[in-house]
Amino acid sequence: MQLRAKVLEIEAGNKKIVVLNREDAEELGIKGLARIKLSFNQKAITCIVNIAEAIVQKGWIGIYKEVAKILGVKDNELIEVKVAEYPNSLKYLKRKILGKRLNYFEIREIVKDVVEGNLTEIEIASFITALHSFGLSLDEVTSLTLAMVETGKKLELKRKVIVDKHSIGGVPGDKTSLILVPIVAAAGLTIPKTSSRAITNAAGTADRAEVLMPVDLTIEEMKKVVEKANGCLVWGGRLDLAPADDIFIQIEYPLGIDPLMLPSIMAKKKAVGSKYLVIDIPTGRGSKIKTIGDANLLANEFIELSKKLFIKTNCAITYGEQPLGYTIGPALEAKEALEILMGRKNVIDAIDKATSLAGVLFEMVGVGNKQTALEILKSGKAETKLREIISLQGGNEGIKPEDIEIGNYGLDFYAEKDGVALWIDNTALINLARAAGAPKDKEAGILLYKKIGERVKKGEKIFTVFAKNERKLDRVLKLEERPFGIGERAEMLIQVVKEQILHKKTFILER
Amino acid sequence: MQLRAKVLEIEAGNKKIVVLNREDAEELGIKGLARIKLSFNQKAITCIVNIAEAIVQKGWIGIYKEVAKILGVKDNELIEVKVAEYPNSLKYLKRKILGKRLNYFEIREIVKDVVEGNLTEIEIASFITALHSFGLSLDEVTSLTLAMVETGKKLELKRKVIVDKHSIGGVPGDKTSLILVPIVAAAGLTIPKTSSRAITNAAGTADRAEVLMPVDLTIEEMKKVVEKANGCLVWGGRLDLAPADDIFIQIEYPLGIDPLMLPSIMAKKKAVGSKYLVIDIPTGRGSKIKTIGDANLLANEFIELSKKLFIKTNCAITYGEQPLGYTIGPALEAKEALEILMGRKNVIDAIDKATSLAGVLFEMVGVGNKQTALEILKSGKAETKLREIISLQGGNEGIKPEDIEIGNYGLDFYAEKDGVALWIDNTALINLARAAGAPKDKEAGILLYKKIGERVKKGEKIFTVFAKNERKLDRVLKLEERPFGIGERAEMLIQVVKEQILHKKTFILER
Repeated sequence: MQLRAKVLEIEAGNKKIVVLNREDAEELGIKGLARIKLSFNQKAITCIVNIAEAIVQKGWIGIYKEVAKILGVKDNELIEVKVAEYPNSLKYLKRKILGKRLNYFEIREIVKDVVEGNLTEIEIASFITALHSFGLSLDEVTSLTLAMVETGKKLELKRKVIVDKHSIGGVPGDKTSLILVPIVAAAGLTIPKTSSRAITNAAGTADRAEVLMPVDLTIEEMKKVVEKANGCLVWGGRLDLAPADDIFIQIEYPLGIDPLMLPSIMAKKKAVGSKYLVIDIPTGRGSKIKTIGDANLLANEFIELSKKLFIKTNCAITYGEQPLGYTIGPALEAKEALEILMGRKNVIDAIDKATSLAGVLFEMVGVGNKQTALEILKSGKAETKLREIISLQGGNEGIKPEDIEIGNYGLDFYAEKDGVALWIDNTALINLARAAGAPKDKEAGILLYKKIGERVKKGEKIFTVFAKNERKLDRVLKLEERPFGIGERAEMLIQVVKEQILHKKTFILER
Repeated sequence: MQLRAKVLEIEAGNKKIVVLNREDAEELGIKGLARIKLSFNQKAITCIVNIAEAIVQKGWIGIYKEVAKILGVKDNELIEVKVAEYPNSLKYLKRKILGKRLNYFEIREIVKDVVEGNLTEIEIASFITALHSFGLSLDEVTSLTLAMVETGKKLELKRKVIVDKHSIGGVPGDKTSLILVPIVAAAGLTIPKTSSRAITNAAGTADRAEVLMPVDLTIEEMKKVVEKANGCLVWGGRLDLAPADDIFIQIEYPLGIDPLMLPSIMAKKKAVGSKYLVIDIPTGRGSKIKTIGDANLLANEFIELSKKLFIKTNCAITYGEQPLGYTIGPALEAKEALEILMGRKNVIDAIDKATSLAGVLFEMVGVGNKQTALEILKSGKAETKLREIISLQGGNEGIKPEDIEIGNYGLDFYAEKDGVALWIDNTALINLARAAGAPKDKEAGILLYKKIGERVKKGEKIFTVFAKNERKLDRVLKLEERPFGIGERAEMLIQVVKEQILHKKTFILER
């Protein structure tokens, strides 16, 4: 059938979608979401069909800009249209829906078609749900990881010892990478660190680092930085490492399931050539992983998968029951990290975590331990290294903590009684920081004056929420969150449960 | 946040979708497919968010016509927008994704939100996949059926004995309902028969009946016909009986899974008030159900579910290895059925099937048996009843078989050797009929001259394919299907398998 092209001014992402009039679709004998092959001027492409009554008239075919570009077709030109063959990936995908195990070849075909936009959201959602329902074998996880690596770009460094660090996230204020990367790079190890922006948290490492320097680099730019400085702090979002992950997570997130977490994380490590990896698993109430037992199970899954990928991995189970350091929000956290590296502040938990994890890497490679990391930090070499990275990534290497802008509007929170800070609700703090504008408003966030175990007096200021305008502070006020539990250690009654509003949060582990 | 309305000229079906600019979405702290609540002039509605860069500018909100209509909002007017609460149905849906059993209340909430357009395709696809993966308990199937009935319209007839017939389909040429409905109605039983159009077959009962009379009736019109004639032959698609099914099947079909088959079928029977039901399960190679064992399993599932719904159901396992009668395609089949009812043709298998199934219903109610059905057919009362139904549905009650138009372009197929027709490939015949234009072109189809067991001579005509233009006959020729297996009964070698092209078909049972 020949149809006349009508280029549609609609964004479809990478999806290869065309719109047919209902009558033409019936003539072809197809329904919505069927696949058709378009041929024009010796080029051909398979697209997914949407059906419309009005926006596309009979005899016309609505094509999105991306498709028009690939075919080189313009408005009014005639395109040859026929029913496409059934893609192989869809056959394999259906095998998974039926509970079968898939081999590497089948998984690679699915991942390739996900990346190339040849599968519909419905099909991908069904695949992800089936993975979640039936579980994945170690072979399948390995195949998925390798397929995600192979369908993306790779960082090719001529270094033998490439190390990396990853946190599954969830702890507000976790600025560990900003401190650890310069320590490790200063020790002469290569650490091509990529990181994500916050999804459910108040800041991701990419959000924090962006306060100090540009992080939106291409893979070529990243390579130059790492070759000179041994390390970098780059946003992973535009590097096209494991691009399948970006598509999978858009579908996993609304469903609140995450069967591809392990392959997604490990694919990005494999794609930058990591040989030694430390994975931080923050654990405790208010973390994503609640118990040491669960943390161990997850750690073993990472380690088993890593073996198949020829990456040596250690996992670090860390204390995640309260924020790290005293700051939450991109600018406040970047400032605190810079102050720590400059030796201006002795934030004991943040320093302990960064040097402990760096120490794990040093021990794996055989170049030192936690003490080595502490010495590098104290010597000022880590600060020098951070400034080198800032400069290479295009930032101001002379940046001072006081240059970093914090929101002008502050809202103080006071203790309601005398006592000890018995617990801190991470989620409540994240909700407050997000209501104040974080992570989008970099200058929004929270400054804590007290942490767990510290004594407070009634009326004493325990934290301040900062925002860039008053309207957002209003949102903070409306939340009515109470992140601090204050009492005496002998008071055993935590809370009396009466009627309460259900308030469920979806946690997605950081990738 | 206040945003200015921009009404979009795009069709979204029943889906409640709005389009936000990426910056506004980030400001609200939400991602694509999140839910927001729009308020305007004391009306409020929850919608699903799509995110765009260009088609909707910052400060604007793109709303589909349906949403604009519900809110009564026009271009340029200001709408109050905030993040919506998490819908309960989504909570329950996620419980199912995690493999939990759902209760009636939870299932009803999901089905209601499916019908009202409050769930995304991704969420529905995930739900369907989870149902498929984990299976449904009898309680869940019952709940789904009742929820589908309650979220749709119902036919309220003041009759005590309401009977019904359903076929899971798959057999080409199956014109049973066209013959059975008038027989049963002529016997004084009430049979408010709804039927579907073909999805994968060459004709559905609605397509066949439409050759003789209008079938696109409202539920009120249908009621009037049944009250006068005891029966009808109406397309179920616009009646809004169990509308959830239409949405589910749009997502099931591309996935090739069908976990909602039982509830979908039974909901439509329950919605018209059926008390006695016969379900036809055609069985054999080339049918949807291949073996008597599988047919029995399916039959028992229907019967168990029926008990819960207070419908007395018998299942009839029928021979499905070849087409019924000698015709395939809407017009050819309608013509053959009319000829049978008029006593002009003695098509033994079609008559046997229709009277056998009518006999099952008569025995269930206690008003006769197969012989009764045969007598009604022979007496001409069934023909009279059909003409009454035709007239009441707005057709020409005097219609003669020769009035029915058949495609002017024919392509004859000849036997390649002497022998007996050992087997007929149903799928091959369906493919040929569809290539010729069926079911969209009513006059397209196939006329068979031979059936299984009949002797043919080399060069003898075995069937003709009809189409309304030559181009479609070209498509038929290109298919290279060979639907007839001809040989001697002593020849044991069926086929030598060399390399072959995989050609998988998705079967969806008729609803």
